[in-house]
Amino acid sequence: MCRFLAYRGDPIYLEDLVCRPKHSLVRQSLRAEEAKMVTNGDGFGVGWYGDRDTPGVYRQVTPAWSDENLRALAAHVRSHLFFAHVRAATGGGIALSNCHPFATSTFLFMHNGQVGGFGLVRRQLEAQLPDTLWHQRRGATDSELLFLLIVERIVNGFGPVEAVSQVLGEVRTLMREAQIPDPLRFSAALADGDDVFAFRWASDDRPPTLYHHRADYGQMVASEPLEGDPEGWTALNPGAALCLHADGRTTEHPINVA
Amino acid sequence: MCRFLAYRGDPIYLEDLVCRPKHSLVRQSLRAEEAKMVTNGDGFGVGWYGDRDTPGVYRQVTPAWSDENLRALAAHVRSHLFFAHVRAATGGGIALSNCHPFATSTFLFMHNGQVGGFGLVRRQLEAQLPDTLWHQRRGATDSELLFLLIVERIVNGFGPVEAVSQVLGEVRTLMREAQIPDPLRFSAALADGDDVFAFRWASDDRPPTLYHHRADYGQMVASEPLEGDPEGWTALNPGAALCLHADGRTTEHPINVA
Amino acid sequence: MCRFLAYRGDPIYLEDLVCRPKHSLVRQSLRAEEAKMVTNGDGFGVGWYGDRDTPGVYRQVTPAWSDENLRALAAHVRSHLFFAHVRAATGGGIALSNCHPFATSTFLFMHNGQVGGFGLVRRQLEAQLPDTLWHQRRGATDSELLFLLIVERIVNGFGPVEAVSQVLGEVRTLMREAQIPDPLRFSAALADGDDVFAFRWASDDRPPTLYHHRADYGQMVASEPLEGDPEGWTALNPGAALCLHADGRTTEHPINVA
Amino acid sequence: MCRFLAYRGDPIYLEDLVCRPKHSLVRQSLRAEEAKMVTNGDGFGVGWYGDRDTPGVYRQVTPAWSDENLRALAAHVRSHLFFAHVRAATGGGIALSNCHPFATSTFLFMHNGQVGGFGLVRRQLEAQLPDTLWHQRRGATDSELLFLLIVERIVNGFGPVEAVSQVLGEVRTLMREAQIPDPLRFSAALADGDDVFAFRWASDDRPPTLYHHRADYGQMVASEPLEGDPEGWTALNPGAALCLHADGRTTEHPINVA
Repeated sequence: MCRFLAYRGDPIYLEDLVCRPKHSLVRQSLRAEEAKMVTNGDGFGVGWYGDRDTPGVYRQVTPAWSDENLRALAAHVRSHLFFAHVRAATGGGIALSNCHPFATSTFLFMHNGQVGGFGLVRRQLEAQLPDTLWHQRRGATDSELLFLLIVERIVNGFGPVEAVSQVLGEVRTLMREAQIPDPLRFSAALADGDDVFAFRWASDDRPPTLYHHRADYGQMVASEPLEGDPEGWTALNPGAALCLHADGRTTEHPINVA
Repeated sequence: MCRFLAYRGDPIYLEDLVCRPKHSLVRQSLRAEEAKMVTNGDGFGVGWYGDRDTPGVYRQVTPAWSDENLRALAAHVRSHLFFAHVRAATGGGIALSNCHPFATSTFLFMHNGQVGGFGLVRRQLEAQLPDTLWHQRRGATDSELLFLLIVERIVNGFGPVEAVSQVLGEVRTLMREAQIPDPLRFSAALADGDDVFAFRWASDDRPPTLYHHRADYGQMVASEPLEGDPEGWTALNPGAALCLHADGRTTEHPINVA
Repeated sequence: MCRFLAYRGDPIYLEDLVCRPKHSLVRQSLRAEEAKMVTNGDGFGVGWYGDRDTPGVYRQVTPAWSDENLRALAAHVRSHLFFAHVRAATGGGIALSNCHPFATSTFLFMHNGQVGGFGLVRRQLEAQLPDTLWHQRRGATDSELLFLLIVERIVNGFGPVEAVSQVLGEVRTLMREAQIPDPLRFSAALADGDDVFAFRWASDDRPPTLYHHRADYGQMVASEPLEGDPEGWTALNPGAALCLHADGRTTEHPINVA
Repeated sequence: MCRFLAYRGDPIYLEDLVCRPKHSLVRQSLRAEEAKMVTNGDGFGVGWYGDRDTPGVYRQVTPAWSDENLRALAAHVRSHLFFAHVRAATGGGIALSNCHPFATSTFLFMHNGQVGGFGLVRRQLEAQLPDTLWHQRRGATDSELLFLLIVERIVNGFGPVEAVSQVLGEVRTLMREAQIPDPLRFSAALADGDDVFAFRWASDDRPPTLYHHRADYGQMVASEPLEGDPEGWTALNPGAALCLHADGRTTEHPINVA
């Protein structure tokens, strides 16, 4: 169970959300509250959009709480749309290529959750990737694989919510065929440089936590309220996707998993 | 507050104590029990004696819980005397040179505790080192500095317990002169290749925990019982040093801080 | 083009070959002589056999020339059969999982060379792995994949030289089908805890260098003579495998690639 | 002997100079031309000024040539004044705290050269630092120590060229007293957010190389011409400081070492 944060709004320094709040993501890396695994010390990453179409990414395999480069970067990089993620490895090993957020072309993605019995369906899922995306796979996580499968659908013309719904459905089908009793849980954020899509879904009744917050300078989603105080933070509805639009609107969409 | 373990007895694989027990040091790195800071993810180290007079040392700045090299090493290195340490940094930054155990010539040392207000006395303490030892200082921790100060006295003919008593007394004096209200706390282990000396002392009434355990194949000291079950683990007396002798005896000595 | 070293003989400290010689592997990491790429700073690894059937392994993504842990380990680990490798990445990225030597069950393997146009045949080659070995793949190199394909054949009863010959033949066939003009080059060492098998083969006339040397305490193969002086070092015949037997004998075998 | 680069001009992406040129700094890290030590793989760093007074810094102990984060950062961070440095360690060990550029308050500094016999004068030099700057020392290099000694003088009202001249004079005096026959060599760059000061000086006749280049979008100094072609690159005069002013002017100043 990892912890993450996505922001969309006026350009602000990453540190304003990543390092400074009382219950900032950096602090959550050392001690999360609403999670079974309190320590998220198996790597971290930030991704941000600037003037270019593609996002910048900085990731490390070491804990976020002690990374000097992260502090310096977060204090000097300003963005209207950024992601931050701290990892508690559930599978895939500690490697840079397993750290979120993942990026390909203009997309950025991060995930908290797990494909139950992933080892039993991994080979089939990877086989579904077209060659181009198969060669872009760098790591061993279920998260990166889900991302590439979702991107494939988006590239083929589906909207992000439809793409996610389809992929979750296919994974679920494979899990059923492999008679995996463990659930599929998926709290995630996806960006294309303009909008942020946040997802909260699970095959059982325990989707990982995800909260939405609106400030006067922008809006954000996070695994846990950043101030410790849940006031002003609204839990995403299970089974729902929330879109933080570039124009400041927020829209909710159902995740329909066949 | 770090966690550590020292062993003296028949040659055993490091993994038998470092990785395998239910509450092994590797598990303590992710979640210690008897400590305010539950996570000890700011680096780790092992030190061991083999056929040579000097100890071998393996240290990393990354968490012990995910280190593949540690697992492999601990499964293939066997020793009659070894140390293992997981770190929760209280000062000095995350760097290899700040990871325990520290080694110089035939000595090995590791520490759990803190020199209160270290920044206010550090410069004077470093100034006390003779040139040779001053040049051996690699990091910025109070622990390494205490070690070098202790080694200086041992090299000059004092026994380990006397050397530690003297150094603690001098640090205490400097702390008083600098009007530092914080305590000096010192749980530590020191080895010379033959014997292990374990120390538990504090200037207040809260010396860091340290337990002694005797098995049929050897004896050990550790910050926390390795099996979760405290049965068969005896807390060291505050203010006492315990010597685990090469011949299997254990002797207790008072730490007399002037 | 990487550099490597394999030793079989009386137990000696790793440092005697890895660190101490005038042209030791650690020095080759900073400046190799007989290679187009002089710097081998993209990670390194050592593997050794002790009392257990499986080998111990220590690998890092950082350069060998500056690794304190390597120096300490090499000075305190003694073995009758060990491998050492310094890497100049030609593909697969800088990651621990791409560092040699690779180990699985009782086998140890390292490689210098390249599957030309690997990206074009990688997916088919991975698809040939049975599930058990497919799940043991950790990295992205051609070397690790060749190793797993070879192990599969050995597990199925073929001898090491026959297994290597078969795998090279299959890779070559796939490369031809994909119309890859680049050569397949393979200098490698494989051990099972008893014997060391060294291979030197290429589909063109430029197999990577590999030398054999016999000392009074044991024998070794290396990409370059360790003393700078080629005296006493014999180049392996192209297309030949050399077996350094546990009993001190050396036998040569042809690599027959169909 | 390290390699570095400093830029002042219109805001450009770091990659335009750090990664892209034919003989970019990243390529120099793998193979420098005008240096005895061709490999600069002992860490690297970039520092840049944005909207804030203090600079952002990203440093690593691993080689620049393979760092994914550096590539991403350099492609997404744009600045009117930035430094980049690749290190070949001559002393101080491989540690983040020994990587250039060094930063304190609004200052950024990097260095190529060496204080001959540094071990013999280090303790006296460190003793000259006032407490505040002594506590800011993180590493063990001569470079960081020179920087802090220079900053002390600037804080006390001296101009950068005067401050450097004084410090070089004092170091030289201590070296003479310690009867060190080795030279003091100093090619360096210092910035305060507005101007860049470049220095080329040595106590013998071999000051490390340093070149100045003026493009239509800005000017830069570098250890080696970035395009391989020295055309348009002018070697700094030995014993001279060059100031790249915020307004585009360049002025030269003598370094007067007493």
